[in-house]
Amino acid sequence: MQNVLERRMFITPSFKIYGGVAGFFDYGPPGCAVKQNVTQLWRDHFVVEENMLEVECCSVTPEVALRASGHVERFTDFMVRDVKTGESYRADHLLEDALRAAVRDAGQAADTARDLLPRVGDMGTAEIDSALNQFGVKAPGTGNDLTHTWAFNLMFKTQVGTRGAKEAYLRPETAQGIFSNFKELLYYNGSKLPFAAAQVGTSYRNEISPRGSLLRVREFTQAEIEHFCNPNDKRHPKFDSVSNVEPLLYDRATQLAGLPAASVTLGAAVKIGTIANQTLAYYIGRTYLFAQSIGLDVGRVRFRQHLANEMAHYATDCWDFEVQCAHGWVECAGIADRSTYDIDAHATSSKVDMRAYEQFPEPRNVDVLTIVPNKKILGKVFTKHAQAVINALNTMSECDAVEMAGKLRAGLVARLALDDRHVDVHPGFVTIDAGKKLVHGARFAPAVIEPSFGIGRIMYCMFDHCFYTRDDGQRTVFAFRPSVAPVKCAVFSLVNTHALNERAQLVAASLTKTRLVHALDTSGISIGKRYARTDEIGVPFGITIDHTSLQDGTVTLRERDSTAQIRLHMDEVPTVVKALVDGDLSWTQLQAQGVSSG
Amino acid sequence: MQNVLERRMFITPSFKIYGGVAGFFDYGPPGCAVKQNVTQLWRDHFVVEENMLEVECCSVTPEVALRASGHVERFTDFMVRDVKTGESYRADHLLEDALRAAVRDAGQAADTARDLLPRVGDMGTAEIDSALNQFGVKAPGTGNDLTHTWAFNLMFKTQVGTRGAKEAYLRPETAQGIFSNFKELLYYNGSKLPFAAAQVGTSYRNEISPRGSLLRVREFTQAEIEHFCNPNDKRHPKFDSVSNVEPLLYDRATQLAGLPAASVTLGAAVKIGTIANQTLAYYIGRTYLFAQSIGLDVGRVRFRQHLANEMAHYATDCWDFEVQCAHGWVECAGIADRSTYDIDAHATSSKVDMRAYEQFPEPRNVDVLTIVPNKKILGKVFTKHAQAVINALNTMSECDAVEMAGKLRAGLVARLALDDRHVDVHPGFVTIDAGKKLVHGARFAPAVIEPSFGIGRIMYCMFDHCFYTRDDGQRTVFAFRPSVAPVKCAVFSLVNTHALNERAQLVAASLTKTRLVHALDTSGISIGKRYARTDEIGVPFGITIDHTSLQDGTVTLRERDSTAQIRLHMDEVPTVVKALVDGDLSWTQLQAQGVSSG
Repeated sequence: MQNVLERRMFITPSFKIYGGVAGFFDYGPPGCAVKQNVTQLWRDHFVVEENMLEVECCSVTPEVALRASGHVERFTDFMVRDVKTGESYRADHLLEDALRAAVRDAGQAADTARDLLPRVGDMGTAEIDSALNQFGVKAPGTGNDLTHTWAFNLMFKTQVGTRGAKEAYLRPETAQGIFSNFKELLYYNGSKLPFAAAQVGTSYRNEISPRGSLLRVREFTQAEIEHFCNPNDKRHPKFDSVSNVEPLLYDRATQLAGLPAASVTLGAAVKIGTIANQTLAYYIGRTYLFAQSIGLDVGRVRFRQHLANEMAHYATDCWDFEVQCAHGWVECAGIADRSTYDIDAHATSSKVDMRAYEQFPEPRNVDVLTIVPNKKILGKVFTKHAQAVINALNTMSECDAVEMAGKLRAGLVARLALDDRHVDVHPGFVTIDAGKKLVHGARFAPAVIEPSFGIGRIMYCMFDHCFYTRDDGQRTVFAFRPSVAPVKCAVFSLVNTHALNERAQLVAASLTKTRLVHALDTSGISIGKRYARTDEIGVPFGITIDHTSLQDGTVTLRERDSTAQIRLHMDEVPTVVKALVDGDLSWTQLQAQGVSSG
Repeated sequence: MQNVLERRMFITPSFKIYGGVAGFFDYGPPGCAVKQNVTQLWRDHFVVEENMLEVECCSVTPEVALRASGHVERFTDFMVRDVKTGESYRADHLLEDALRAAVRDAGQAADTARDLLPRVGDMGTAEIDSALNQFGVKAPGTGNDLTHTWAFNLMFKTQVGTRGAKEAYLRPETAQGIFSNFKELLYYNGSKLPFAAAQVGTSYRNEISPRGSLLRVREFTQAEIEHFCNPNDKRHPKFDSVSNVEPLLYDRATQLAGLPAASVTLGAAVKIGTIANQTLAYYIGRTYLFAQSIGLDVGRVRFRQHLANEMAHYATDCWDFEVQCAHGWVECAGIADRSTYDIDAHATSSKVDMRAYEQFPEPRNVDVLTIVPNKKILGKVFTKHAQAVINALNTMSECDAVEMAGKLRAGLVARLALDDRHVDVHPGFVTIDAGKKLVHGARFAPAVIEPSFGIGRIMYCMFDHCFYTRDDGQRTVFAFRPSVAPVKCAVFSLVNTHALNERAQLVAASLTKTRLVHALDTSGISIGKRYARTDEIGVPFGITIDHTSLQDGTVTLRERDSTAQIRLHMDEVPTVVKALVDGDLSWTQLQAQGVSSG
């Protein structure tokens, strides 16, 4: 398949004439068309359907923003090198391979290996080094020694401006652009939650060992959604529309028990708590439906829950959308409940108030604590500083007041921060008033549910699922859905004569008018060969003009996968092909109407 | 206008919460929608219409490719700094400003300044320094001294891989990705010329002084076309379709004579040689039509020919598509005949044969020179090396043979390269045979005509041309073409009642079904204010549901610029609005049919 993908220029290694650089691919004309179709279907399925706010942010990102998000510190992979060749490897991958081999060999070390295996994700550099040593791991291929393990940051670094050291990185994900615009997007949305923002764009990761064609590359297109909601209310208004969807779920408990994934309705999964909340489950359902709509085999897709050690410390729950292809199960999207981490992190670093305000449907009568300064005593104790202490007590946050009240009630001394120092507040310095207050709403940092898609990986898995051969493996076919196919229809003249070619051009012109992407081939080489050539790039329909066409104006219409043909009048071609491509008419329905000649 | 663009989130400075970085802008929801619309219109106008091969290449580019293209050496601007503040400036811009001021002041130095002004583009660092000194140029604002001038490379540098120094740059233009894929694209196109390839993508330039909102930014979207053709045949098969287009042309002679640009038909301009060839003129015509189709005021667009010192040494002819806006005349596209430079450069550096083959319609009888070795003499002169000399003579290129024949006929000695050294060939060592040969075709490096568009600049100029105020400047409007508008239609309930809101939701749902992007506003605030809010972001049509709607099912449809209204039945809304947006129906036609209530 990779052969066909490169020969027919779906993809090609970037700067191939210079030997290329691992992990970079260009999309040639058919690949570029498929990518645009898949991206547009994604946009229609998610952005348009949910009325999301789509944005387009810059890739070059100042260091301060990626320090806030934690990427400068933690966006790393563990790396070792072959001491002789200098070849780089992921240390954790080598260790896992060695541990799995030890388990398989069932020798002395098998039990230790079995115990270590699930813990690799938790290990630091020292632990990985010691385990690599213990299992005598050497460089693959050469058998040379390995260097020590270190954490390698995957971001591409650059510098902006002419005055030297303004450090920046190419974004490793599109999400940070959305987070940093959250306040403006909230305002744009009329200050109302929940809402979702989306972005389709390029991200960059300096992968240690790029491989698997489009599966692990260094420059790739992401389609990310950030759904912002109240952390105390993660219901989704449209959840009912997916509650009967029944994908393969591979939850944490099932994985740890070594059992296979099972089909569960999303309604049931939320009810029994397998999936943490409705919004997560809603996006799992929508992702499943999207997979189906672009022609992935849904028997080979599953949603795998992250194990505790795979998740970021702040994440509440996370599910990977995985697709089985020739390379095994491939993560094509991640759907994560990231709690309020992202907005908190940027609010803290930028010192911008990024909270949303929620007006309660009814004002609420809530308990409030008030610390009332006892001015007489304070005056005696603090003399000329008394007024500063009183001011500080009057402007305390509710949270601090609760803490102080707790201490004083227990007979302890509480500490109070003034502008330039601290003072001790003893019981008796203040009176604690516990009362009620009518509250109309609350300010809070929103939680984020993030479905994040890798467009290239999805395309690669779709190529894999659509690829088949016929005629004893002689001929290859891509069974693309018409909506995804790079070219919708090919037009052929059966033999290369002026009269037939003229008709073919007329049909092609009528397809242009209907904005159907098509190819015209009047080369006159054998029609079987020409069909094979278009099957190879997945053109779903072929129109052939033959001698009968000159007499009665009919042409043949061939369907790619069945290779069945029907005759229809050339005037009907644009309408019929458009209906087939848009899914308003099926081939079976058409056959029932038309006159088959196949 | 910039205020409205930022307040309504068309654009926003990237990472604003961190103070931003000059030269980076994000597109918010309406900006992102306008950008997608403009890009799609560009794609329909150029790529689909001409059946171009669209590709998508990587941004991260290995140094070797950009060294081949000349960017590593020459993609520089001249820069100086304020010695005290460190602020950076374009040295050539400061010098030009100073020279213009000297001309205006008409003092002693005026004549020298007038002479120097047109030569600034030809100057090197030393000359600029001496001129800056001569005119006493200081740092703007501070009046501080300036540093010496140096050439600053505008590319962002990064490193790929984990093994250290594999240097790479972010592409400064999308074109190099197309050139490096030329051989594969030619094969994809059935080895036939001419053809055009296109790419829409992000490019990056570390501008010395970014300014003018979207006009000079550091990360931007380009839409580039590379039209490959025979350097001896730059006719265009569709030239007739634009030969009557009559844009403002500002050719070299007119500029040097200080005369204004003049309207000329493209047919005439090619005939009298103002524009070098049909293909260049064809793209000028198509660009003019594109400008018109997206709503630029074609009275304020012109095509300006590069002066000799503006053009790259290899370019044959080059025209900038310029648009007049509040910032003056802005270059929004360049249409250049780049000769065979690009393909030659990459073929030389990569040592890959990138020539195309042209089969002549009829075989041609051409003059050929054959150098026939005189074996007897050569044996005597070169003894044991004679065979190597004979081999070298037999495998000479035609070009070398012509050169040798010229010298020998003039009685001179010619030099012949062997594998490891040179030998002298005297007259009499060989016989020169001048004969005829039947040749079926020729191999050649293709010429490139490159129309290159800056999408952000085009958008900015379109914003400028579409922006106006009414009600004594109180209210601002964007008069976007419906095809460009971010939202096509707004739906309002006149007052906030359940019955009216329900109807409004029904109308909105019918627009969703027709895939018309719309906004629904049931807030019940004054309808005038709500119209103003949608005018501000350029929504072309508004639907209002009022009490009459509940009785007879009619609604009002308002047009943004005339503010005229007509009543129509709510069932007709999707069809009518779609026809208006697609341009199949004009507002005037609709008014003639409908019942005006405006």
